[in-house]
Amino acid sequence: MNASAQIGVTGLAVMGRNLARNFARNGYTVALHNRTPARTHDLVKEFGHEGDFAPAEAPEDFVAALERPRRLMIMVKAGAPTDAVIEEFAPLLEPGDMIIDGGNAHFADTRRREKDLRERGIHFVGTGISGGEEGALHGPSIMPGGSTESYASLGPMLEKIAAKAKDGTPCVTHIGPDGAGHFVKMVHNGIEYADMQLIGEAYQLLRDVAGYSPAEIAEIFRTWNTGRLDSYLIEITAEVLSHIDEATGKPFVDVVQDQAEQKGTGRWTVQIALDLGVPVSGIAEAVFARSLSGHSALREASRHLAGPKPAPLSKAEAGAFADRVEQALYASKIVSYTQGFHEIATGSEEYDWDIDLGEVASIWRAGCIIRAAFLDRIRAAYDARPDLPSLLSDETFAQEIAAAQDDWREVLVAATRQGVATPGFSAALAYYDALRAERLPAALTQGQRDFFGAHTYRRTDRPGSFHTLWGGDRSEVEA
Amino acid sequence: MNASAQIGVTGLAVMGRNLARNFARNGYTVALHNRTPARTHDLVKEFGHEGDFAPAEAPEDFVAALERPRRLMIMVKAGAPTDAVIEEFAPLLEPGDMIIDGGNAHFADTRRREKDLRERGIHFVGTGISGGEEGALHGPSIMPGGSTESYASLGPMLEKIAAKAKDGTPCVTHIGPDGAGHFVKMVHNGIEYADMQLIGEAYQLLRDVAGYSPAEIAEIFRTWNTGRLDSYLIEITAEVLSHIDEATGKPFVDVVQDQAEQKGTGRWTVQIALDLGVPVSGIAEAVFARSLSGHSALREASRHLAGPKPAPLSKAEAGAFADRVEQALYASKIVSYTQGFHEIATGSEEYDWDIDLGEVASIWRAGCIIRAAFLDRIRAAYDARPDLPSLLSDETFAQEIAAAQDDWREVLVAATRQGVATPGFSAALAYYDALRAERLPAALTQGQRDFFGAHTYRRTDRPGSFHTLWGGDRSEVEA
Repeated sequence: MNASAQIGVTGLAVMGRNLARNFARNGYTVALHNRTPARTHDLVKEFGHEGDFAPAEAPEDFVAALERPRRLMIMVKAGAPTDAVIEEFAPLLEPGDMIIDGGNAHFADTRRREKDLRERGIHFVGTGISGGEEGALHGPSIMPGGSTESYASLGPMLEKIAAKAKDGTPCVTHIGPDGAGHFVKMVHNGIEYADMQLIGEAYQLLRDVAGYSPAEIAEIFRTWNTGRLDSYLIEITAEVLSHIDEATGKPFVDVVQDQAEQKGTGRWTVQIALDLGVPVSGIAEAVFARSLSGHSALREASRHLAGPKPAPLSKAEAGAFADRVEQALYASKIVSYTQGFHEIATGSEEYDWDIDLGEVASIWRAGCIIRAAFLDRIRAAYDARPDLPSLLSDETFAQEIAAAQDDWREVLVAATRQGVATPGFSAALAYYDALRAERLPAALTQGQRDFFGAHTYRRTDRPGSFHTLWGGDRSEVEA
Repeated sequence: MNASAQIGVTGLAVMGRNLARNFARNGYTVALHNRTPARTHDLVKEFGHEGDFAPAEAPEDFVAALERPRRLMIMVKAGAPTDAVIEEFAPLLEPGDMIIDGGNAHFADTRRREKDLRERGIHFVGTGISGGEEGALHGPSIMPGGSTESYASLGPMLEKIAAKAKDGTPCVTHIGPDGAGHFVKMVHNGIEYADMQLIGEAYQLLRDVAGYSPAEIAEIFRTWNTGRLDSYLIEITAEVLSHIDEATGKPFVDVVQDQAEQKGTGRWTVQIALDLGVPVSGIAEAVFARSLSGHSALREASRHLAGPKPAPLSKAEAGAFADRVEQALYASKIVSYTQGFHEIATGSEEYDWDIDLGEVASIWRAGCIIRAAFLDRIRAAYDARPDLPSLLSDETFAQEIAAAQDDWREVLVAATRQGVATPGFSAALAYYDALRAERLPAALTQGQRDFFGAHTYRRTDRPGSFHTLWGGDRSEVEA
């Protein structure tokens, strides 16, 4: 076999298959491998006309089909299967070759694998890929980590297959060393959870407080999608809400069980944020809302609990309320992204990744699930001021939140009084109000901790650590 | 040396020293050991008159001083130091002996150690101990895990040194196998975080919205402490708030830096809850509030953000508002404990611990930081109905929340409108309203997930998993 393939893909389930086709459609020769050879042959049979494929059954033949340095992409399940495939192929590779992991690996696993393979001379490129099946085929948003050297070799190919933002920029960039790519992909998913939760709360408010039907709410989302909320998730929300269930003739959303599932990256985003000391309350509430929805016995046992029943507004009031919900949704969205970018910035510092936050926003503008016009503005904010302490420090966003906040607060007042759960909106506002607070009750917390555990405190007027002799004469001692 | 000591303590920093004294004061002969022998000798010199101590310098002598089966308690830092001490002593022990770890270990470490030592015939008793220095000396709340056999031998001693509830019950019980004790201690600390955050929010509202001084707020907390909120944390809050800083003559709480610190168990509680799929939003907000308070650069950059300035109420209004805050605090507290007990119940199921939730509430009634009259009522709720799906399902608590909720909601309305951050109160109400909701927006979430990722959904009207062909004719297929 000629070593003529610029890239090889092993693991030809739907994501791997579509990425392989995407490479081939862009003019690359793509070596193909799958544990069960039938899948390899099916791909060639069905899509062979789309480009140059080099199918192989034996791992050795697959590797032999790759030009050097070899670029070998693995598209298998995260966790043990990824380790197994790495151990299958690494011994067949040579120094300078690259293994690209395009799965949803935990960034800590990616760091471990990268270190291990680096010691064996092999570049390991943990790569976040967002956009689902369709994105994989037509252009995903791609977040590769790994060495600069590997990006020099691989980057041009990824730029070809990636989604393109409206200005033509490919939605891929070298995120940073080792696990940086998978870390950023993880936070992307965490933000996606928050976006979806906020949209869900907006929907519920429009339904219960404003009294709109799903079809009417779909129209509202369609209108929102022409403004600053313009995004893929708002677009598909309108599609889902306007869909009528064929079997019953009812709105689709009313026949779907209201128990949301999750696969883990949202949870990781919160767990890692806790380790890093970054408050991501909006993302956490989104993850908790999904798990709460699934506790059906608990929900069943709680249905009788006392609480107000929303009294729908008049038609005139409803329209004004919908406008307020748009403000609340937008302001809460700014906070979610503020929290997510804070996590990326902190991870970048912790692991010496030197991540360009403007570039991250840039490559999320197309191809991925959270793609939105909004991201262009985040990119602009970081481009204008790369050391922005937080998105809320950007003047434009700060002004928008300032303009939105009366409505944001009134929407929460309505939700609170009418008993509609808005954990995401509420967490976002609490974060905003806490950040801008002159003083926080954390001073009391420190006093309590010193009282019961002698944990000491600092003073506002001079440096040092202090302890009050609470059990004694209550004088203060330097700790 | 005679093998006459019923228990040995190694690691004589303040917690270890006080526990050793507590055992001795209760009539036990206590073998003592510390890496630096000076500490051992100091203890005997200073407190030798309190009881029978058997100090030892060499590990072999320490072990030889213990009657069989040996009970060896290690009071060193969690993590690597604990492993090191175990490896130092385990080879000197014999089958049937017990190692008691009284540190704040992660329950997963405890499970690992217990398994390892069990295979060597040694009982490993991971034991949560709450109450700080004072508790260790005068009676802590004790949460031992490990084997039933070890508790049979150790329990009577622990019952002697433990705090006693008002009805005389010792605050110790065999929580369950392996890591159950450390797990329960972890959740205890998570609940403690939530309690402290809720108290902090109540304080901030009384300060900013009601316009009270710290001294006035201390009086309010003192009054609350005579009612259903009667608890150690409310009591010390009054002490901290009424304390005047000697150096400046200002209220102490105003000279303490408002940046709260944390040691990790609160964070673990949330991380494990995420793994278990248990929504603990109130505990999470408490952990996030602490980390947010410490981000001083971010806070500095956010001080200028737009928002309302609270306009303090009139004296008459303030009194009524304070009553409402008590209702909000109490209702939110019920929710925090609901979430914490849900986590314990789920952990118990996951790890086959068979934890008696009523017993857990019972042993938290005295000795520990969250000790409160309230816990007696939780005990009663679980005693009356051990299979209670949630604390909110208890009729008394449900009635109290029903009575509190108008005030609870109005406090949040005031906080929202006046720009005072109440992440804990808000998360608690959102949890409550979500649990009692007839329908949640999770149905929309499932629709979106099916749209962009073909993740499928379930229907309300028939079993099975379904997928809508969103990119096609939008018919439904069984998945």
